[in-house]
Amino acid sequence: MIRHIVLFTWTEEATDAQKVAVTEALSELPGLIPQIRAYTVGSDAGINQGNSEYAVVADFDSVEDYIVYRDHPDHQAIIAARIKPIVATRAAVQLSL
Amino acid sequence: MIRHIVLFTWTEEATDAQKVAVTEALSELPGLIPQIRAYTVGSDAGINQGNSEYAVVADFDSVEDYIVYRDHPDHQAIIAARIKPIVATRAAVQLSL
Repeated sequence: MIRHIVLFTWTEEATDAQKVAVTEALSELPGLIPQIRAYTVGSDAGINQGNSEYAVVADFDSVEDYIVYRDHPDHQAIIAARIKPIVATRAAVQLSL
Repeated sequence: MIRHIVLFTWTEEATDAQKVAVTEALSELPGLIPQIRAYTVGSDAGINQGNSEYAVVADFDSVEDYIVYRDHPDHQAIIAARIKPIVATRAAVQLSL
């Protein structure tokens, strides 16, 4: 299994509506990309100080399936229209489990 | 459910032995802390450029169970002895799912 993990912080100018729109858009991807086995996205729960603001954890059966997701036009469209305009920092790891 | 996610990069001075020791130590925690429901740790798979180097994804039934893990002496001992000496950057999010 490949577990794809991304953490974001948003720019100070990012609005609540823009942040909500990221979750709304990403939440459609499991219905559009059948290679996604599990998909959890959302904003930090506010338990700890100093955290990043947003996380994506996506599971795939194989590297090939992850790459289908990574490069999928519907995913890339969300990155371009919803994420890139408000990203301050991005950190990612893919685990091979 | 609470999903706790951490991404690390290591210092340039960190040795392979020190990096392996992190996984060996963390992998013991599910046997020591029964509040852990699922636990995946490991080094980046090397699929993409520019990634962080290490990830922890831990699932808990509740915020309270996550806090037991966060503050558990066995966990804190690993952070102090194995992780802090080689950490360059850390990013974390807790998702409430």
